[in-house]
Amino acid sequence: MPRDPAVVLVSGGMDSCVAAAIARQTYDCAFLHIDYGQRTESRELRAFRAIADHYSIARRLEVSLRHLRAVRGSSLTDPSMPVPRADLQRSGIPDSYVPFRNGGMLSVAVSWAEVIGARAVVIGAVEEDSSGYPDCRAAFFEAFNVAIERGTRPGRAPVIQTPVISLSKRQIIQRGMELGAPFHLTWSCYQDEDLACGICDSCALRLRAFQSLGLDDPIPYRERPRYHPAEP
Amino acid sequence: MPRDPAVVLVSGGMDSCVAAAIARQTYDCAFLHIDYGQRTESRELRAFRAIADHYSIARRLEVSLRHLRAVRGSSLTDPSMPVPRADLQRSGIPDSYVPFRNGGMLSVAVSWAEVIGARAVVIGAVEEDSSGYPDCRAAFFEAFNVAIERGTRPGRAPVIQTPVISLSKRQIIQRGMELGAPFHLTWSCYQDEDLACGICDSCALRLRAFQSLGLDDPIPYRERPRYHPAEP
Repeated sequence: MPRDPAVVLVSGGMDSCVAAAIARQTYDCAFLHIDYGQRTESRELRAFRAIADHYSIARRLEVSLRHLRAVRGSSLTDPSMPVPRADLQRSGIPDSYVPFRNGGMLSVAVSWAEVIGARAVVIGAVEEDSSGYPDCRAAFFEAFNVAIERGTRPGRAPVIQTPVISLSKRQIIQRGMELGAPFHLTWSCYQDEDLACGICDSCALRLRAFQSLGLDDPIPYRERPRYHPAEP
Repeated sequence: MPRDPAVVLVSGGMDSCVAAAIARQTYDCAFLHIDYGQRTESRELRAFRAIADHYSIARRLEVSLRHLRAVRGSSLTDPSMPVPRADLQRSGIPDSYVPFRNGGMLSVAVSWAEVIGARAVVIGAVEEDSSGYPDCRAAFFEAFNVAIERGTRPGRAPVIQTPVISLSKRQIIQRGMELGAPFHLTWSCYQDEDLACGICDSCALRLRAFQSLGLDDPIPYRERPRYHPAEP
């Protein structure tokens, strides 16, 4: 029996790669990548294409939302703001927050989903152990689902699914390992494109999770600080 | 006292021009125009710039959402679909519906609003007497407002305002006349860029409304069918 189509947002990072691995179990996946003018976009795009090739995804769409660079307001898109060194104890919304980015990305996914008849839009957002971004919270996606239901053709509304939202980075790696997700093809660094810096928030969260599992992260780093305390 | 900033979505058409005229009474307006790959974009962009010049708007942003052309699904963006001749009795969702376009446009506006500290996002959507588009209904904007509240920095959420949503086209013209809105600078035709066709849905709704008020629409038409029955 043919499977229902779903649109999967795939940034090229670890979380969306595992979300895609989960989605593939149920859906005929169409992969969507968004260029929002982030510093590392060319590296992320390469990761997106490699993951899509790995899974033999025929339906792919690469979309530009580069106005998110034009409006600035984030260290990920504004060249005049430095990418801060990781501080995993910091609370609040980090400088890397891109204003309402997920609203824009979901809207693209919903438009495409409505045209191809996809019943789901899958996004690898993570609420805990991650970012503090307001547009990564389950409450946001619930509200956006109501807007989708009301703002699309009757009977055609896709539903946002967030398969990793309540997982820790550590659990995401475990789930991805079970499913054979191609971590070696992913890219998470906020700052660099050849060797991951190892010291931005995104690298730190990723390295700490691999370290806590006693695993080697298979991508190349310039430095690999120890973020997870060794067992006594 | 300086006025609060607001982001106003200005397509170049009549409804958003009047929405902008209303918004100017309260807010320090920043104008946002979206290119979504519609057939008449170059003419609409010209109208946007003329309206922004007319109102001496300093903060302007022109953004591309041309993926809405790439995904197709609408006669406004898909060159292989004809723009239908107006049928003002037709019910249901017309071919010109662009899937979840307003979700995408509002997301751009919200991202910009969050960066410039705008408290409102103004959109000239019209629910009745217009289009049958699901993403033009008040219920959609209410739901989207909840998503904005949850998906932006605490205390920075702008509120979507729809000052013409419950007006008829006729009432929109009356309101615009009271406010001196520059109708002569607007463009509504779905099909053409030099002379408005006079026969697409958008031209028909506009012409009927001017005719019902006994007024001449100040823009040039190739043909001006009579849509409003003359009084007996």
